[in-house]
Amino acid sequence: MEEKVLIAIQDDYPEDFAWCYGCGRMNEHGHHFRTGWLEDKTMTIYAPKPEHMALPGYVYGGLIGSLVDCHGTGSAALALHRKNGHEPGDSAEPPRFVTASLHVDFLKPTPHGTVLKAIGTVQEIHPKKFKVETEVFAGDMLCARGEVVAVVMPSSFTAKEQHN
Amino acid sequence: MEEKVLIAIQDDYPEDFAWCYGCGRMNEHGHHFRTGWLEDKTMTIYAPKPEHMALPGYVYGGLIGSLVDCHGTGSAALALHRKNGHEPGDSAEPPRFVTASLHVDFLKPTPHGTVLKAIGTVQEIHPKKFKVETEVFAGDMLCARGEVVAVVMPSSFTAKEQHN
Repeated sequence: MEEKVLIAIQDDYPEDFAWCYGCGRMNEHGHHFRTGWLEDKTMTIYAPKPEHMALPGYVYGGLIGSLVDCHGTGSAALALHRKNGHEPGDSAEPPRFVTASLHVDFLKPTPHGTVLKAIGTVQEIHPKKFKVETEVFAGDMLCARGEVVAVVMPSSFTAKEQHN
Repeated sequence: MEEKVLIAIQDDYPEDFAWCYGCGRMNEHGHHFRTGWLEDKTMTIYAPKPEHMALPGYVYGGLIGSLVDCHGTGSAALALHRKNGHEPGDSAEPPRFVTASLHVDFLKPTPHGTVLKAIGTVQEIHPKKFKVETEVFAGDMLCARGEVVAVVMPSSFTAKEQHN
């Protein structure tokens, strides 16, 4: 299994969509999650910072939730981009997704000090709605299972309509 | 509705349980979520930082998930503490909870620049397992609904057994 995401969908987001605290490359305080293809799965790799603890020695669940969240929207963007005939890095602008729902089952305490790897399986459930099932590993240990329903960002995000 | 949490359960956590990135008062980089009673509901109030954005003008979903997460464990601790005859601030050590599962439905884009208020309803589903239903408001607008299943922390958290 590869240990680096070489080409990430977030690298191709336009500047006005690159400020997300989780995955925006322009957000200097954010996590800078980067999501790419791993054959027909998707992958995001992240090394939690020392302060991202639940208690000493274990990773904070909210950080894992954030990883699952952005991994989900990134994976949905990868999938629809590929369906549209594009791959990250080919200079086409990817579709933009927002999260309709986020679910995480914490299976085991997640040890700190180990790189986390989120591996996703994407399923189209509507032309504008994708479900991403994610497994989060610390090393080889499966620590959490997540599910995100991601929807194409409404044309006017400020319309504040219900997303799901 | 009160706008401050005056007495929070997290203020009573023992030092070794006060390092959580979400709600630990000892974590200097964390969010410092504080959860208290609001009559028979629970409440956590938080003002997102400028960098906690999904895109400019809107709050990052992972931050909302983190709020729901720690609000859930804090609410469960409040409920079991009360069941045991205690209130925060009475110098008794509260029970410790960890998150078994986290779910968030994002109903509306959450505007940035407004204080967020998580209001929780706690239900005991087992002597060691509590479900917390949470509504997250930005001002008066309901923006997200969350559910956390929180369980009493296993005596040896390092045993890495399955939590749910």
